[in-house]
Amino acid sequence: MKEYKPKSRLSAQAYINGTLKGDRVILSRAITIIESHLESDKAVAKDVIQAILPHSGNSIRIGITGVPGVGKSTFIEAFGKHLISQGHKVAVLSIDPTSQRSKGSILGDKTRMDELSILENAYIRPSASGNTLGGVANKTGETMLLCEAAGYDVILVETVGVGQSETAVHGMTDFFLLLMLAGAGDELQGIKKGIMEMADMVVINKADGDNIKKSELARLQYQNALHIFPQSESGWTPVVTKASSTKNTGIDVVWDTILKYKHLVTENGYFIKNRNHQKIQWMYTNINDALKHLFYDSKDIKSQLTSLEKDIISSAISPVKAAELLIEKFRESF
Amino acid sequence: MKEYKPKSRLSAQAYINGTLKGDRVILSRAITIIESHLESDKAVAKDVIQAILPHSGNSIRIGITGVPGVGKSTFIEAFGKHLISQGHKVAVLSIDPTSQRSKGSILGDKTRMDELSILENAYIRPSASGNTLGGVANKTGETMLLCEAAGYDVILVETVGVGQSETAVHGMTDFFLLLMLAGAGDELQGIKKGIMEMADMVVINKADGDNIKKSELARLQYQNALHIFPQSESGWTPVVTKASSTKNTGIDVVWDTILKYKHLVTENGYFIKNRNHQKIQWMYTNINDALKHLFYDSKDIKSQLTSLEKDIISSAISPVKAAELLIEKFRESF
Repeated sequence: MKEYKPKSRLSAQAYINGTLKGDRVILSRAITIIESHLESDKAVAKDVIQAILPHSGNSIRIGITGVPGVGKSTFIEAFGKHLISQGHKVAVLSIDPTSQRSKGSILGDKTRMDELSILENAYIRPSASGNTLGGVANKTGETMLLCEAAGYDVILVETVGVGQSETAVHGMTDFFLLLMLAGAGDELQGIKKGIMEMADMVVINKADGDNIKKSELARLQYQNALHIFPQSESGWTPVVTKASSTKNTGIDVVWDTILKYKHLVTENGYFIKNRNHQKIQWMYTNINDALKHLFYDSKDIKSQLTSLEKDIISSAISPVKAAELLIEKFRESF
Repeated sequence: MKEYKPKSRLSAQAYINGTLKGDRVILSRAITIIESHLESDKAVAKDVIQAILPHSGNSIRIGITGVPGVGKSTFIEAFGKHLISQGHKVAVLSIDPTSQRSKGSILGDKTRMDELSILENAYIRPSASGNTLGGVANKTGETMLLCEAAGYDVILVETVGVGQSETAVHGMTDFFLLLMLAGAGDELQGIKKGIMEMADMVVINKADGDNIKKSELARLQYQNALHIFPQSESGWTPVVTKASSTKNTGIDVVWDTILKYKHLVTENGYFIKNRNHQKIQWMYTNINDALKHLFYDSKDIKSQLTSLEKDIISSAISPVKAAELLIEKFRESF
C-alpha cells in the first residue's frame, strides 16, 4: 500500500524551533503530527519528541475529572483565568473516551471555555484518546511534553470520570482533582470505583445560591470519608473544598491548595520520585500493550479464543489449561 | 537435568477418587501436587484438575482480609465454628505473601485455629502464594476447586491486607470481607489503598469490654464513608458491623449478611455473571503473565532494561522510544 504524504507538513526542526519559541500555531501542528497514524509523520514525531524532551517537565500537571454536568468546563475556565492572572501559562488537554465511538466530543460545543481560549497565555486542545490506556498515555503524554517545551507551566488534563482514562491520567499527573456536586451522598453521580481513592482534592462545585448549605454538608461528608482512607505515599491528606465557578468563589483556594501540595511533595522528595516512577511506568505500559498486540492480534489466537471462553464457562476446560494451550500456539508461531 | 521423582505419589485417579469422596488426607496430598514445581507432578495435577472441574463451584467463596493484629485467626475460628454448627463444611485457605521471603508464615504458629482445625467439617490449609498475582490465582484458585470437589461449601480465603494478593483474592471470591479495629479513623492500620472499595462488608473486630463504644463509633464512621462510595455492579451496598470473636458476638450477623448478599446476587444474576467473568479473567491473567515471562526473562531484554530506565529518568530517551527499542529486539529474537 502506497502511503499518501499529506501536504503542509514542516520539517522536524521547524516543529522543534517553533514549539520551543512558544509559537501556538506550530505547537498545534506539532501535536497533529504526534497524533497522526501516518508512518511518515510518526518518524518526524519521534525526532520532535526526542529533541524537546530535555525542555519538558517544568510544570505542575493537574488531572481534573468529574462526570458530565458537574461543570468541568466552567470550572476550568474560571481556574485557568485565575492561573493566568497569577502569571502562569496554562495548557488544557481534554480527553474524551467517547469521541471515537460517537464522533461527538466534549469539545464539540465550540463555545466551551471561550473566555479562556482567547487569552494569550492559554492553550486548549482536545486530546485523541486512542484505543488503549497506553494510547491515552502516549498521545496525551507526548502532547503534555510539547506544551511544557512551549513554556506552559500549568498543564490541566481533563477527563469525564466515567471511563478508563482516569487511571492513565492519574499515572501522568502530579495532582488529581475530583469535581463533585452537593447531594452526592446518596447517588454518587456515576463516578467509577477507585477514582475517589486517587483524588488529592475534591471540589464541591456549584456551591452558590440555594446550593451553599447543601454544598457545605457534602464537603463535610466527603472530608470525613476521605479521612478514613489509607494515607497516600505522598504524605498528603486529601482536601475537600467547595467552589462556585460562575460566582468565582473558592477558585483561589484550589490553587493555594495545589501550591501547598507542591511544596510538601517537593520538600519530602515525592514529587521527583513520582515523576521518575511515572516515566518508567510509561515505558512498561507501552511494552505490555505491544506484547498484548503481538498475541491477541495473531490469527491463530483470535480463532480459538472465543470457543475457549465458552469451554471455560461450561467447565469443559480449566482457565489455566486454556491459557497454556494458547501460549503454546503463540510460541509455535515464532 | 534428570528430575527426581518423589516417593509416595499416587496416581491421578487415586487423587481424583479420594478428593471426590471427601478424604481429607488425599485432598491434602492432591493440593501438594497442585503446588509442586516438579514436571511429573504438574502433569498429574492437570489431569486431576480437569477431572474434578465439573464437581467444583458449588460453594460460596469468601475473601477475608485485615492487617496483622486485627484478629483474623480468632475471627475465622469463631466464624468457622458458627458455619459448621449450621451444617456447613468449611475450608480455610491462607495466603501469606511474606512466607516465601522470610520462611516465616502466618500459619507458623501451630496453635492458630486449633479449636476449628480439629472439627471434622473443617479443613485448614496455608496456600503457597507463588511469585506473581497469577501465581496466587493458580495455586489458591485450583486448591479452592479441589476443596469444592471434596464437598466444602464455604471457602474462606484469608490474606493479610497489606500486599498485592488482595486483588487476586477479590478476583476469585464471591464476597469480600474486611476486618478493622476501632480507632481506625486516624491511622488506618496499614490497609492498602483500593482495598476499602473492594469490601462488601467491614467488620469492626474486638468489639468487647471497654472497646464497645469506640467500636460503635468506628462502625458509624465506616458506614458513612462507604455510603459515599460508588455503587458496586453487584447492586449490593456494603455493610459495616461490629463483632467480638472472643465473646462470640456479631459472628452470626456476618453470616446472615453474607446469606442476604448471596440471595440478592443470585436473584439479580450477578453471582453467576461474576463467576463466569472471574473464570475468563483467570485465563487472561495466565496469558498475560506468560507473555511477560517470555519478554522479561529474555537475556537481550534484561541486559538493556536497567540502562534504558536510567536514560529515561535523565530524559536522554523518551519512554515510548525505549519501549519500541525493546519490542524490536524481542521480535528479532523470534
